[in-house]
Amino acid sequence: MFPVEQQAPHRLDREECLRLLAVEDVGRLALTQGRAPAIFPVNYALDGEAVVFRTAEGTKLAHGDRAAAAFEIDGLDREERRGWSVVVTGRLEEITDPETLERVHGLGIRPWADGPRGHWMRLLPGIITGRRVGRAG
Amino acid sequence: MFPVEQQAPHRLDREECLRLLAVEDVGRLALTQGRAPAIFPVNYALDGEAVVFRTAEGTKLAHGDRAAAAFEIDGLDREERRGWSVVVTGRLEEITDPETLERVHGLGIRPWADGPRGHWMRLLPGIITGRRVGRAG
Repeated sequence: MFPVEQQAPHRLDREECLRLLAVEDVGRLALTQGRAPAIFPVNYALDGEAVVFRTAEGTKLAHGDRAAAAFEIDGLDREERRGWSVVVTGRLEEITDPETLERVHGLGIRPWADGPRGHWMRLLPGIITGRRVGRAG
Repeated sequence: MFPVEQQAPHRLDREECLRLLAVEDVGRLALTQGRAPAIFPVNYALDGEAVVFRTAEGTKLAHGDRAAAAFEIDGLDREERRGWSVVVTGRLEEITDPETLERVHGLGIRPWADGPRGHWMRLLPGIITGRRVGRAG
């Protein structure tokens, strides 16, 4: 793979991307802070097509609602020099609707670090893209 | 871990971050495109403290020199629910200086996808941060 489309990388369709998003549970969230990008690893779960994660007051929340964000997951096989990646681009929002909150509480998101995380955020997907590169498995 | 500092995550010092950056060879580059962030997995190598990668004409190059960027690597142990991450924030530049080009050619960066990648880019680090979270190993 990586970094630019070459060697006819296999593009993953939206269904396959969503399947991978449903299986994984850690990804990386990119936000724009001022004019510079920032990246944060997050524990997440999928709620429909939305990427849901928990957070305390902090950087991500400080961005407020509707901030543009990108979320990435990947699977890398260094030995075989191949891998796949899925990127979701969309807008962040805090989940405040009681019904949605109750549902996402059941998603089983367990951050690896303890501590209060009273806020539930979700990335509402706009574009979802994925690709697989390197030698075929 | 993830997403916000809790449970006294262990902060990695710069030396440890650079050691991890020297060992790994795939990371994720975040750029701001317009006002939205984008993420790209990249094969990379470390040249001093600069993150070097190859690219063809494309998104990343279209940003031109001196674009703000963030680069992330991590190591995740899902079973033990712990991991570490290192984030480098800085500015991108294309490497054009012949002496530097000769040096980075020797870094052994081998993108997993074939194809022409005539351009060498580097992220000149400003801030390097790292942390380790989850149960102690």
